[in-house]
Parts: sequence; structure tokens; C-alpha cells
Amino acid sequence: MKLQDAKTVRVRRKLLETITKKSFSSVSTYPESLEVASSHNCENMVGATSIPLGIAGPIHIRGSVAKGTFYLPLATTEGALVASINRGCKAISQSGGGIVNCHRVGITRGPVFYTGSIENSEKLYRWIKTHGDRLRKEAQETSNHLKLDKIKVNTLSQHVFVRFSFDTQDAMGMNMATIATQKMAEFLEHETGFKCLSLAGNFDIDKKAAWLNFIENRGWKVWAEVILSEKVLSSVLKTTAQKLYETWLAKCVYGSMMSGSLGFNAHFANVVAALFIATGQDVAHVVEGSLGITTTQMTKQGLYLSVYLPSLVIGTVGGGTSLPAQNEALDILGVAGGKNGKNAATLAEIVGGAVLAGEISLLASLSVGSLASSHQKFARGK
Amino acid sequence: MKLQDAKTVRVRRKLLETITKKSFSSVSTYPESLEVASSHNCENMVGATSIPLGIAGPIHIRGSVAKGTFYLPLATTEGALVASINRGCKAISQSGGGIVNCHRVGITRGPVFYTGSIENSEKLYRWIKTHGDRLRKEAQETSNHLKLDKIKVNTLSQHVFVRFSFDTQDAMGMNMATIATQKMAEFLEHETGFKCLSLAGNFDIDKKAAWLNFIENRGWKVWAEVILSEKVLSSVLKTTAQKLYETWLAKCVYGSMMSGSLGFNAHFANVVAALFIATGQDVAHVVEGSLGITTTQMTKQGLYLSVYLPSLVIGTVGGGTSLPAQNEALDILGVAGGKNGKNAATLAEIVGGAVLAGEISLLASLSVGSLASSHQKFARGK
Amino acid sequence: MKLQDAKTVRVRRKLLETITKKSFSSVSTYPESLEVASSHNCENMVGATSIPLGIAGPIHIRGSVAKGTFYLPLATTEGALVASINRGCKAISQSGGGIVNCHRVGITRGPVFYTGSIENSEKLYRWIKTHGDRLRKEAQETSNHLKLDKIKVNTLSQHVFVRFSFDTQDAMGMNMATIATQKMAEFLEHETGFKCLSLAGNFDIDKKAAWLNFIENRGWKVWAEVILSEKVLSSVLKTTAQKLYETWLAKCVYGSMMSGSLGFNAHFANVVAALFIATGQDVAHVVEGSLGITTTQMTKQGLYLSVYLPSLVIGTVGGGTSLPAQNEALDILGVAGGKNGKNAATLAEIVGGAVLAGEISLLASLSVGSLASSHQKFARGK
Amino acid sequence: MKLQDAKTVRVRRKLLETITKKSFSSVSTYPESLEVASSHNCENMVGATSIPLGIAGPIHIRGSVAKGTFYLPLATTEGALVASINRGCKAISQSGGGIVNCHRVGITRGPVFYTGSIENSEKLYRWIKTHGDRLRKEAQETSNHLKLDKIKVNTLSQHVFVRFSFDTQDAMGMNMATIATQKMAEFLEHETGFKCLSLAGNFDIDKKAAWLNFIENRGWKVWAEVILSEKVLSSVLKTTAQKLYETWLAKCVYGSMMSGSLGFNAHFANVVAALFIATGQDVAHVVEGSLGITTTQMTKQGLYLSVYLPSLVIGTVGGGTSLPAQNEALDILGVAGGKNGKNAATLAEIVGGAVLAGEISLLASLSVGSLASSHQKFARGK
Repeated sequence: MKLQDAKTVRVRRKLLETITKKSFSSVSTYPESLEVASSHNCENMVGATSIPLGIAGPIHIRGSVAKGTFYLPLATTEGALVASINRGCKAISQSGGGIVNCHRVGITRGPVFYTGSIENSEKLYRWIKTHGDRLRKEAQETSNHLKLDKIKVNTLSQHVFVRFSFDTQDAMGMNMATIATQKMAEFLEHETGFKCLSLAGNFDIDKKAAWLNFIENRGWKVWAEVILSEKVLSSVLKTTAQKLYETWLAKCVYGSMMSGSLGFNAHFANVVAALFIATGQDVAHVVEGSLGITTTQMTKQGLYLSVYLPSLVIGTVGGGTSLPAQNEALDILGVAGGKNGKNAATLAEIVGGAVLAGEISLLASLSVGSLASSHQKFARGK
Repeated sequence: MKLQDAKTVRVRRKLLETITKKSFSSVSTYPESLEVASSHNCENMVGATSIPLGIAGPIHIRGSVAKGTFYLPLATTEGALVASINRGCKAISQSGGGIVNCHRVGITRGPVFYTGSIENSEKLYRWIKTHGDRLRKEAQETSNHLKLDKIKVNTLSQHVFVRFSFDTQDAMGMNMATIATQKMAEFLEHETGFKCLSLAGNFDIDKKAAWLNFIENRGWKVWAEVILSEKVLSSVLKTTAQKLYETWLAKCVYGSMMSGSLGFNAHFANVVAALFIATGQDVAHVVEGSLGITTTQMTKQGLYLSVYLPSLVIGTVGGGTSLPAQNEALDILGVAGGKNGKNAATLAEIVGGAVLAGEISLLASLSVGSLASSHQKFARGK
Repeated sequence: MKLQDAKTVRVRRKLLETITKKSFSSVSTYPESLEVASSHNCENMVGATSIPLGIAGPIHIRGSVAKGTFYLPLATTEGALVASINRGCKAISQSGGGIVNCHRVGITRGPVFYTGSIENSEKLYRWIKTHGDRLRKEAQETSNHLKLDKIKVNTLSQHVFVRFSFDTQDAMGMNMATIATQKMAEFLEHETGFKCLSLAGNFDIDKKAAWLNFIENRGWKVWAEVILSEKVLSSVLKTTAQKLYETWLAKCVYGSMMSGSLGFNAHFANVVAALFIATGQDVAHVVEGSLGITTTQMTKQGLYLSVYLPSLVIGTVGGGTSLPAQNEALDILGVAGGKNGKNAATLAEIVGGAVLAGEISLLASLSVGSLASSHQKFARGK
Repeated sequence: MKLQDAKTVRVRRKLLETITKKSFSSVSTYPESLEVASSHNCENMVGATSIPLGIAGPIHIRGSVAKGTFYLPLATTEGALVASINRGCKAISQSGGGIVNCHRVGITRGPVFYTGSIENSEKLYRWIKTHGDRLRKEAQETSNHLKLDKIKVNTLSQHVFVRFSFDTQDAMGMNMATIATQKMAEFLEHETGFKCLSLAGNFDIDKKAAWLNFIENRGWKVWAEVILSEKVLSSVLKTTAQKLYETWLAKCVYGSMMSGSLGFNAHFANVVAALFIATGQDVAHVVEGSLGITTTQMTKQGLYLSVYLPSLVIGTVGGGTSLPAQNEALDILGVAGGKNGKNAATLAEIVGGAVLAGEISLLASLSVGSLASSHQKFARGK
């Protein structure tokens, strides 16, 4: 591989700006404004860490809201990743695009209350069950952008765990949810006399791999699928349906079972991490983003492949999304800023499509034994 | 909170350079060199994403290898995180420092072989069990920096899953491990006639939350502990031992159980993510880094607190560690480059100390109900 | 220990009959009637397996429905188990009784449908979400003893998983639930054209240890608690609050975390198994019964201890409950036959109390290092 | 279904005695001797619970030690179970028999030690690592039938968890293992000064569903496989390879993933429970027996099916195995008593074959929608 000198990067960036008709200035110069803007994002700031930003795609996505072709901004230091996702995008696009769907589940916050006895826990349980509307009123007074959607209560003897799910429109919403939960918890303490031991009682459950998020979901749940013809499999992916199926079954299914894994996939986390860094998401949410299942099916038209992400936590406003380069990356995807929840849904579906691309390419590579060689080629610069 | 304008950031950076006697130039200007250097890290590069970099500490660490005080470079877009870790560092340092220990477990690669029958799997199993030295020879021919430490074999009827653990000195070593595994897999295929379906069969298991990594460990396992006196608890952390204990029990223990979590902690992932981005680690390994247990104990001297990270995947050479800002961050910690594995061990212990600081501060904050207010203060810039 | 000869057993049985004013004839002679009665329970019958039946208690239970003192029928071949539970019953009774509570969750059946595409799965999802009443009508036509309580739908690309929860009064209800689900599945196939691939799609999930049952619960969820005074701890249990607490923390909490366990307890399964065999439950449901959490708290009055069983699958009519000895065992507990769900609730709470007794005694034994000696004493007949 | 009156049962029993040339007297009369014999098995005995005993088979097994045809004794109260397993036996036998293999892993006991600090834990860890032979000597002085095979040590800050694995020949061996562990723990306490908090620290982990047992195994690990021809699939199982495959994928694979299950199978627990009760095993070990994976593969010769049981805890001497009816059941299988471990291995393989039969039959039934009807037929006596 020839060196990517500064000039090549500049030329490529210009080309992308021409194609997408978007400005990409912040990713090209050190953003002086970062230091001011980041007063909300980072204390004791001393500078910035620059992560190389590559582009994969375009990928053709036929989602419930995300429709069209997208260039994927991927911030990574792992050689071969962008190239691999790029290949997956090509395979998907040549197969007519990826079908994608998403459901908003909502961000959650889960306070835990101490009651001291089973009898008291039963009282608190019943109180919450009958005061949903009252709690909703408290929550929604804290923000016009937040709705309380669902209350789940599980009791463990002396402790009552609550899981509030919120609709926070285009925001990831963790801070909004925390503030609303604080208000509800105070109200609840005042009305019932039981103490909130922790506003975040790990029944949320935030930034840990947990079955609760897999089963009850968190943020967004996303599905993406495509049928790869034998032609695409051979010309783009250098493999066959049979080989890819066998690798998937051995790795994503049996290997994950044998390992006690919550990820029955090839490498969701890689794609999610690169997109999260590029678009200003909370990177620790890669943990939830690593959960999920890749499925396949041998069909007459070719190999069906799908991904399911049960717990994708993202947003297009708030947090790191307003930093210069990050906002530009969202803009490249056409989802910068708020749009009544539609931008977040679109971003969720784009992530779904990107993750599908990543799965296809890595599984194809593994199925023909080219993982080591492609890493040698890219990561070692040979 | 007053705005962090460019000048404040510059002054702070200079101060840090003076204290640490290190240069911090790459985090302060757009690194022209990034585009060249990153030819190994990112294809189709169009620029860079800048993540605000804050500094927490100093933290006093009394590790098996990491000894002294450290300023922690944290790249994050989540307001309040650096300030929170900073407070934890202060609490630890005022308590005489954090005791830390680590074991190298080694990076793993886990190929899966197809044998077609139980009888054949038994044959392959026995072959591997009796050819460990031969496999080691194959592996070690691929690099002078790699040793094959352990071979674990689990069989599922027609499939044989192998988990190779490597010592890769200061490198995280995933690529080295892949190349060595490729060589062994080819040798194995040649000698036994059984086919390798995937060089990475999810018995590694890489970048997925999995019990195999929790139980058998991966990369490094790290423990860190401290005893917080009531004085430190009240003056620095604004709480009491009793309150912090109750919050820990409700959240990290019971809440995690009720959620089916592999993280019995408050927020390992946040600290790990910020350190990983700053120091050029593979960010998707935050998934493994989110695993682990926080423990407490009420003692006469105060509150004992510890963290256990069963699967910390890090390195100080290779991957993103040689990028300019990332290398400077490693240099600030005194662990840039290779040193026969000692730098990686030191970094592992520093991460352990930092994670301990993060747990202490967040649990303290939750125990007195100040989570929402501190997030409002920092993240909203009030 | 002196031998339990036939005469001792007879005398003890008579005494129990006098105390409880119940007949215990079927457990004392080979039930000729078994062979006829069991035509519903066992095909190709050639005889019967006799399991020794011991009695523990009385245990004083202060439940939401189970109130009073109970003699626990325990069928087991594990020496020391009955004696151990007996000791726990004594400790609980001398502490004023165990407080117990239960919630009916309902038995579940979870069919899986194949739709072939994400788009079709979305259609089926919506259809089910809007046809709950119609499905309920179908289900409830199959039995007067069954109500459809809840429908949970999770989608995986081409497959739609449904989890129906039923109120089946005093019956465990698996067969009723299967028949009702069959009717709904046929209706659903007819109305939507999508095929049911399996009436039981492991989203039930029956007789496997699964987080879904831990989190969403199945059958009954039960809590039981008691505060043991230092006097009871020393005189009955030969330990102290501190010792028992430390053993619990090391074993049930940390040990379970380190093992990736769904049981954060000492030995729920032992007690559940012995009660299940004695009372004619489906013994494979011991798997679900092994799930759950034991908690403790050091208080001024003594040591608080509780158990939480998230997924207890039991009944007092149907299945093995009508076999002679099994029915007598239910009768001894006062819960033989149907009573609008009250008998099943009472049995659930009795199991909760018994499990609490078992936890207390084993943890006490372990805390003073007498496990091996008590097993040597009982199991080896010394 | 016609009633199974006493006479039918007698005739069937006689027939079985003639075929197997074994006596089946204890399962046919109330065993007076039970009350004496059970002095080792049950305290406070008042009688016995009789479980209907049915026979499935013969099943043809081609194991590494279990070779030939076997009649399976199944004690159950669940209608349709014996008939279903019987059908699976027929399908296997007509397909040339089930290939079975097993590995002895050994029973485990896992004490937990309290050291108080990370530094002390490191000391204890190293002590154990360098004193394996010394510990083995201690252990093996407690019994001639026990060997210490493996020592695994995992450390959590202040606690050190040890997992001893023992070869206990034909005995399940839990009691032997406990006594040997007691001796080692006392030795360890004496030599190092660190306290054993619990002889059983849930790192064993006994009678809880846990990933540690799935990954590291416990007792025996067993594999069984068969290839079902289309003829057998249609004539015996009334289904097709395609249908059975689709049901398996939807249920055992996807359904188990969606449920967070440690059982990726149809109903291991049912078969294991019925065999365990009949043969005097510790029934609470059904929990471990429910773990495992069923696999399939479409081949030219028909449908390949296999089961993998990672943690099967069984024995042929000790515990309930010497009770009259239970011993007869073992005798029918040709594995009563001790035989240098060979009887236990044989029983393990028979269980593997039986579980395979159970999976085949239930999956076949589900694949054609006959679950509800077969339960209605058998369980309701129609």
C-alpha cells in the first residue's frame, strides 16, 4: 500500500466535499473553536486527541427513515477496518441496498430505592404501579424534549429497582433522563418516605453488557438485511454463500455459545466504535452497541444476511455531537441537529447498515482465510 | 462554570508541561504528520476527528510496576467525567495511594476447525494436546516479540474451538497473534487434514462481552484498592462510608444481578474509554474493559474499595499508539514505546488506578444524590 | 446417627399424622393405585421409583396467603439435606417466622414465527400488537381455567418471537398454555399467512436457565425474609451474624459473580428439588427454581436474610400432583387440589419459606466450617 | 390411550425382565428395606414418594465405552415424555445407532479464602501455584478413590477462589470432594494463615446454572450424534430434514439467544431429570444437566444432529444409587456399582444418547406442529 501523504488526503477530502456538497473544514484543520466549545464536554482541558478519519461507502440504505446513499465517517486507528467496511458497503449497494428498520425504545434511567422489608417493597411497588401518570407529570416538567414512556419495576426483598424509559427526540438523552429521574425520585421519596439509594441503580443499565438491555432493549433497536447474489459474493467478496454460511455458523453461532457471549456477531463493536467517535457519540456506549445477533440463510437468490442491534444508544444533538468535526460528520450523513426524533432514527438506521457492511466483509474475509493477509497489507503498510 | 477559552487551555497545558517535563505539542496543534503516520491506521483518510483531552490527577499509584504519581490523559466528550475522575484521584492520593497489581494473561486468538464428526473432533483434540511444542514453534517463527503461552481446546461435536494465548510484550498484539495463528492453523490443516473455518472463531473472544473472557481472562487482569478514611470521605467525597457502602451494594451488586450484567461496577467503561482514546488503544476493546467487579468493605480505618478488571486489552506499541497525540499521552504516563512488556504492565496498572478513582467518585456522588446536579453544572456549562 | 429402622419411620409417621390430622397412607405402602393413576403421567410404565421422604419443620410462615406452621415434605436421596432444612426451619420459627410474599407471573409459552424479512416481521409485530383482544379470545376458548395475561414480542430479522403469559389458577399450566398457544398460533397463521416454526420457540423459556426468566419472571416470583437474633444464631445455628455475613458475601455474591452464575445463592436447587419431587411438580423445573438471589443485612436486631426466587414454576392440580403420595404431601401442606389459584400461591410461599430455611442452615454451616463433618455424620451414617 | 392398569404394567415388567435377564423386583413392590437403607439418604424419614417408572428404548449406542442396546429407565410424572424419548430411540437405532463420546472432567469443590488485601491475595495465589503436589497429597490421604486432577485459582482483590477438580472413579463424588477439600483448606489455613470463609465458595459451582461450568466443564462432558435418513425422518419422526432444521434454528439457536439462555437445546432437562430420578442421582444436578447445545447439519445422507452436555454430574456408586429401585435401574443399564470409573463413563454416554433421543423427538414434533396434540393424547389420557 502506498503512503497516504497529506496531499492524497486533501484531494480525497475535496472530492468528498464535491460529491456530498458539504463542507469538511473542521476535520482538516485543528479546530481553534474546539477549546471553547468543549467547555461542556471536558474539564481540565489541555488540548485534543486527533483520530484519523476515513470514509467508507457509499452504502445504499433502504430504511424506514434512512433512504439513499451514504458516505460513512469512521474514526479509527485500526488498520484495515475502513477498507473492510468499504467492501461491505459495495457488496450491499450492488445487491440493491440494505433494508433497515428501527424502533425507538428510549434511553433509560434506573433508580434504586431502599424500603427495608418485603412488605414495604410491596407497598412501594403498588404505589409506583398506580402513580404512573403523576410520575410522568413530574418528569416532563423538567424538559419539553422528554417524554416518560415506560416504567418497569422489579423488586429484590428490601430494594425496589425502577427502570424509566424516555423518549428524548434526537438527543441520546442520558442527561435529560437523569434530571427527570432526579425529580421523580425526589417526588417519590417525599410521597412514600422511602429513600433513593442511587439515581442510577444499574437497572438502567448503562455502559455495561447486560441481558436486561438485550431483552428489554435500550436506546434504539435496529435490524438490517440484504441478500447477496453469488455474483456479488464472488466478485466483491471473493467467497461463496456456502463458505460464508459455514464461517458464520462456526463463529457467530457456535463460537459465541461456547464463550458465553452476549454478542453473536463477528465485530459489531468495531463499526460502532468508529462511527461513534466520528459522530460525537458517548464512546462508552460501544459496550451496548457490541450486543446483538448476525443471522444468515441460504436462499435461491443468494445468501441472506441480517444484523440485529438490540441496544443502540445514539443521538444527533447534545453531548459530543456539537463539536466541530463531529457535527460535520453528522452533516455528511444529513442528520446534524434536531428534527423531532427523525435525525436520530436515521442515524440509528445508518449504523445498522454500516454494521451489516462490517459483518459481511469480515465474515467473507474469514471464510477464505484472508484475515491475516489483509491486516498485514493495511496495518503494516506493506 | 466559567468558559474554558483557548487561553485557559494553553496556560494549563504549559503548566502540565512544566510539571511533567514532557512536550505536549501534538495535542495542541493540528498534526500535519498525522496524515502520513496514519497510513497504517486508517484507509480512505479524509482528515481527523478531534476529541477534547482533559487531565485528571495526579493520582498516587503503588503498583507492582507502576509506582509514583501520574497525570491521566482523558479524551472524552462527556461533561463531568474528567472532573469526577479527578476527584477520585485526589481521594486516593490523600489516602496514601492506590495499591495495584496486574497479571499478564495475554492476547488470544481462537480459530475454529471443522471435523465433521465427534470421532474426528476427538482425534483433533488429542493431536493438539500432544503437539503443543510443535505449534509453539510455528507461532514463534512469525515474530521475535511473540510467545505462545497457553492452548485451550473445547469441542462441540463437529467443531473444535482453540484459544491460543500469547505474550506479545508491550504490544496489544492482536495482529501479531492473528499472523501467528494463521501459521499454526495452516500447519494444523496440513498435518491433520481438518479445515479451519475461521481464524477468529469467537472463542478468542474479541470485542464482545463474554463470560469466557471474564473467567479465563484476556490481555491483562488488574486489581486496585484503597482504604478511604472518614476524613477523606467527608472532605473530598462529601459522603460517608455507610452511604457509599449502601449505594455500592444496591447498585453494583444487586442492580447488576437484577440486570444480568457482566459489569458489577459503577462505570468502568467511561474511564476505560477516555484513557483508551487518549492513548491510542483499540477503542472497541472498551467492551472487554467494561467487565469487572467493584468491591467494598467497612473497616475500622475507613471504607475499603477495590476494582477488578478481568480482561483489559492494552498496549504501548503498535496500533494507534504511535500517532502523535496518542504517543504524547503515553509519554506523559512514562510508558511510550516498548520495554520488554514493562510499559504495558505499567499502563495496565495505571488504568486500574484510574478506574478505581472513577468508581470512588461516581459512587460517592450517587450516594449523596448529586449526580444530576454535577452533570447540570458541567455538561450544561452553568 | 442411629439407624432409621422401619419401626422408627412408622412411629414418626404416626406422630406426624396425629399432629397434622392428615392421613399419610400412600407414602407408607406401595400404592397399587399408582399404576392406574399414572396412565396420564408415564407411558410404558413398569413400576415405580421410591424416593425416601423426610419431614422438616414445622416452619412458621407469615405470608401474604401462607399463614401458620407447616411440615415440609422433602423427597431426597441426599443425606444431611432434611436435617439441614429442619435446622433452618427452627431458626426461622424461633425468630418469629418468615415473612413471605409472592406475585403470580403466569406460565409462558413462546411460539416463533418465520416471516422471511424485516418488513414482514414489522407487519406481524404490528398485527400482534393490535390484536391482543382477539388472541385472548382464541386462547380463552380452550379452557375455563386459563386467562391470557400478557403478550411480549421480540423480533429478530426474519423471526418473530412471542411470549404469552397465562393465569392458569392452581395448575402449573404448561399443557393448558400449550393448547391455548396452539389455537392462537393457528389463528395467527390463518390471519397473517406467516408460519409458526415451533409452538415452543425457547422464548418461553422452559426448563433452561435463562436471563429472560430471571428478568421477566415465570410462574411465580417469591420473596421470603427473616431477622435472626444473635441468640438464635448462636444457639440454633452455632454461628454469628458477622461470620454468616462474610460467608454469604464471599460465596453468594462474589463467588457467583466470578462463576458467571444465574444463581446468587447457596443451594436453592436442593430445597426446590426435594419439595418438587415430594409434591408432584415437574422436576425439570428445578432449573428455573435454582435461579435467584439471597441477600443479607447486618442490623441492630440481628442478621437480616432474604431469598428472592424470580421464576418458580409450580401447581397444586394436574401433572404429578394427583398421584397418591404426591397428593398427600400437598395435603399435609393444606394445598391439595384447586382453590381459584390460592393453593398455588400458598405453595409458592411455602417453597419460599423452605428455601429461606435451606439458605440459612447451609450458610451457617459453611461459616463455621462444619459442612464436611455434617455430611460425614449424616451421609455416611456415622 | 387405554388405561395402564396394574396387569398391563406387570406384564410389561415381566417382559423386560425376560429380555434384559435382570430382576426388577424393587420397582414392583414397596421396598421395606428402603427405610433402613435410607438412613444415609434422608433424615426424619416418614415414608417414600413413588414416581412412575417407564421404559424407553431400546436405543442403540456406539459410545467410547457404552456399546450396545439399552433400555432407558425414566421416572417421571410428565405425560408424553417416555413415549417421546422412545420414538427418538427408535429413530436413532434405525439410523445405525448414536455415536457417543465422553471426557471425565471431574467433580469440583471450590473454597474461598479471605486475605484482606491484593498483596496478600497475590501471596496466596503464588503459594497455591507452587504447592500443588503438597495439596494433592493432603487430598488423596482422605480416600483411595479420589485423585486431585486440577487446581484453578481466580482472585478478586481480598478473596481468592480455588476450584479443585477430582477424579472420583464411579462415584459422583461430591462428598468425597468436600472431605478432601476440607483437609486441603485446613492445611492451607495452617500454612498460610489465611482463613477459609466457605468450603464451597460458588466457584465449584454446584447446582446453579453458571458459565464457569459451561466453559470449564464439571463432572463429565458428553457428545452424541446421529445422521437421520429422510426415510427415518418421514417414517418414524413424521417430518423432513428441512422442517426439523428450521425448527432447530428458530428455537435452539435464535430463541435461546433472544432469551439469554445457557441451554441452546430443546429439552435436555426433561430427559436428564427422568434418568436422574430413576438411577438415584442427585436431582438438583439437573440444573447443570440442562446446560448444553444441540447442533444440526443438512447433509447428503440426511440430517446430522448432535448434543453436547458440558457439565453432566453423575455416578453409579454412593448417594441414592444404592437404594433398591435405583440400583435396579442402574443394573438394567449394566452400570450398577463401581468399576474403576468405567461404569460412570458408560452411564454418562447413555445419558448422552438418551438426551439425543429426546431432542430428536421433540424437535420433530414441534416441526410439524404436533406438540399440543401429543400432550393432549398422553397427558390427558384420551
